[in-house]
Amino acid sequence: MRTAICERFGVEFPLFAFSHCRDVVAAVTNAGGLGVLGAVAYSPQQLDTELNWIDGQVGGRPYGVDVLVPGRIDASAADRSARLLDFIPDRHLDFVTHLFGKYGVGMPEPFTGAMSAYADEVGRRVTAEGATGLIDVALRHPIGLIASALGPPPPEMVARAREAEVPVAALVGTVEHARRQVAAGADVIVAQGSEAGGHTGDISTMVLVPQVVDAVDVPVLAAGGIAGGRQMAAALALGAEGVWCGSVWLTTEEAETLPSVKRKLLAATSSDTVRSRSRTGKPARQLRSAWTEEWDGAQESPGPLPMPLQMLLAEGAMARIGRAADSGDPGAGELVNYFVGQVVGQLNRVGPARRVVHDMIEEAAATLERLRAVTDGGHHPGP
Amino acid sequence: MRTAICERFGVEFPLFAFSHCRDVVAAVTNAGGLGVLGAVAYSPQQLDTELNWIDGQVGGRPYGVDVLVPGRIDASAADRSARLLDFIPDRHLDFVTHLFGKYGVGMPEPFTGAMSAYADEVGRRVTAEGATGLIDVALRHPIGLIASALGPPPPEMVARAREAEVPVAALVGTVEHARRQVAAGADVIVAQGSEAGGHTGDISTMVLVPQVVDAVDVPVLAAGGIAGGRQMAAALALGAEGVWCGSVWLTTEEAETLPSVKRKLLAATSSDTVRSRSRTGKPARQLRSAWTEEWDGAQESPGPLPMPLQMLLAEGAMARIGRAADSGDPGAGELVNYFVGQVVGQLNRVGPARRVVHDMIEEAAATLERLRAVTDGGHHPGP
Repeated sequence: MRTAICERFGVEFPLFAFSHCRDVVAAVTNAGGLGVLGAVAYSPQQLDTELNWIDGQVGGRPYGVDVLVPGRIDASAADRSARLLDFIPDRHLDFVTHLFGKYGVGMPEPFTGAMSAYADEVGRRVTAEGATGLIDVALRHPIGLIASALGPPPPEMVARAREAEVPVAALVGTVEHARRQVAAGADVIVAQGSEAGGHTGDISTMVLVPQVVDAVDVPVLAAGGIAGGRQMAAALALGAEGVWCGSVWLTTEEAETLPSVKRKLLAATSSDTVRSRSRTGKPARQLRSAWTEEWDGAQESPGPLPMPLQMLLAEGAMARIGRAADSGDPGAGELVNYFVGQVVGQLNRVGPARRVVHDMIEEAAATLERLRAVTDGGHHPGP
Repeated sequence: MRTAICERFGVEFPLFAFSHCRDVVAAVTNAGGLGVLGAVAYSPQQLDTELNWIDGQVGGRPYGVDVLVPGRIDASAADRSARLLDFIPDRHLDFVTHLFGKYGVGMPEPFTGAMSAYADEVGRRVTAEGATGLIDVALRHPIGLIASALGPPPPEMVARAREAEVPVAALVGTVEHARRQVAAGADVIVAQGSEAGGHTGDISTMVLVPQVVDAVDVPVLAAGGIAGGRQMAAALALGAEGVWCGSVWLTTEEAETLPSVKRKLLAATSSDTVRSRSRTGKPARQLRSAWTEEWDGAQESPGPLPMPLQMLLAEGAMARIGRAADSGDPGAGELVNYFVGQVVGQLNRVGPARRVVHDMIEEAAATLERLRAVTDGGHHPGP
């Protein structure tokens, strides 16, 4: 199970694991893949702490950091003198209050009270300025990859990464974006299909990957729809040099997924996700729940706000919904959800991340072995 | 390029080609694949003529027939005493008239005048009774496969096919439907991802195929997102024994695709399709055009009718729109569209169907060859 990209990144298997959980990142790196920590949930100081911990776990093996740098965000987020909460219209706050009431989620204090400065901090992290703080911290650690989701990597990020000799990866959902990302300095393209969890475009992995491979002259990783070895082998068949997986780690032992969410993930089928703007303001695949149904379908829904305002609103609400769901509140249980791809239908048991890596690589190797029989002794086409 | 299914169907390559055009069907069968004629556009008499022609072309090589048997249709279609057109509400007819006016499509006679009995005939063809007439004709020819799209194969169809020793294939978009189809007697399952053209579910090929393969004990063909050899090899990696392709034939020399549509297909990217109910009443992937945009987005749109009423309305309108678009009418050119999958972005030149087969098989063989290097001399995972 080696491709050219394995040499380049010093890994045993061409398996990149995106996770918000440091334990998953370290476990995958130690199992021979490359763990990538999603940094958006952290302040620069917190990120530093997490990366110090990872450094202590992986003994010099390569890992990466992913920052969320949207190409276009609501202008309000750039104005540091304003409180972001002030830009959230009353009817959006009212709709959240309405949902809390309808689903019986307790609300001991006014909804906005709990958000304030922390909300501003989180909301600004997805601005170019906010991301830069995280990038600075990341590059002070011995990372092997820095990834940029949503938009082209900012020139500063590319320049600093180049200086530190850290390859830059960029997630794309179209061929056009892949070309633009390479022009902006991306060293690796993650071609992510519409079946992926989180922010995605609408072209499937099967269709997107070969087109991106043909369009750019840098290595391509396939993302979206990959949680098993047959899918990993399929990604290599499509021309990818490796795979980038996110959803499959959510049900590992290490993942900090809320218990109420983990139960939903384990029970869900591949029909139970939806691409919705209701959690971040941009289309992101997630579990279908009362939250997505209400925002996207209810008569009284004001419709989602732009990023980062909707993210701010949703994260604030979801923090409370998650706690209530974990305490067994049935209404909160209907609302709670999380970003996950269509592979959720394959996630049926909890195990260590290390075992997921080994199972995936074993199944991929067995698949490649099986494919030999298709050509061995088989016909070749005529001219 | 041989899998177990090649022996079973007596074909050289595990490549099944769905087309409404007899020339494509014969060309693919003669090139070593298995052409499948979509029968919905024909009356039983016309189908007989088409199959006689194919019999004369293929020298006993295997080909198949596909009928459209929806699991659920509007009750009005079953009432033979009624004229189907009578069930189309005035505001739907008015909306079509409005579109014709807005886009300057000529309308020399009242819209409904041109539909009448032919419309009833077409509309009823997708009822179980209508499909039965086509099945009877098909089974009088030496066909090697009979396929049922949309719903489980009706018991009569299965019984007759068994008697004639013709395998029954069924298209599915979920694991649950696959199980149901096998229980209903399907011998082969076509697992069709959301990226496919025509009627599709919302789970991608990458995610759907391995789950269906694990769920049923009959051979599985992969459909959706497959128009090249890398995608064919990926489908085999996912566990499919072969592939089922539709869109890729639309731009072949043989295809009877309207010139105005062919031009659009050649120019389209993979972002230019949409799953819409505006042509048949059920979600079907097609080129995004003014037709889909108006039905799905316009303020004054009455929304699509159920199948088969919307199909009837849309086919009647599209026949005229197509003629006008082919005569260079720019408004009609905006409206005209056709069913096609996301692979449309890969369709950039016109060539013979035979060449498409050969190119796909050659690329698939080269891909399988390339994949050998991934394991040759590579590491195997530890325990």
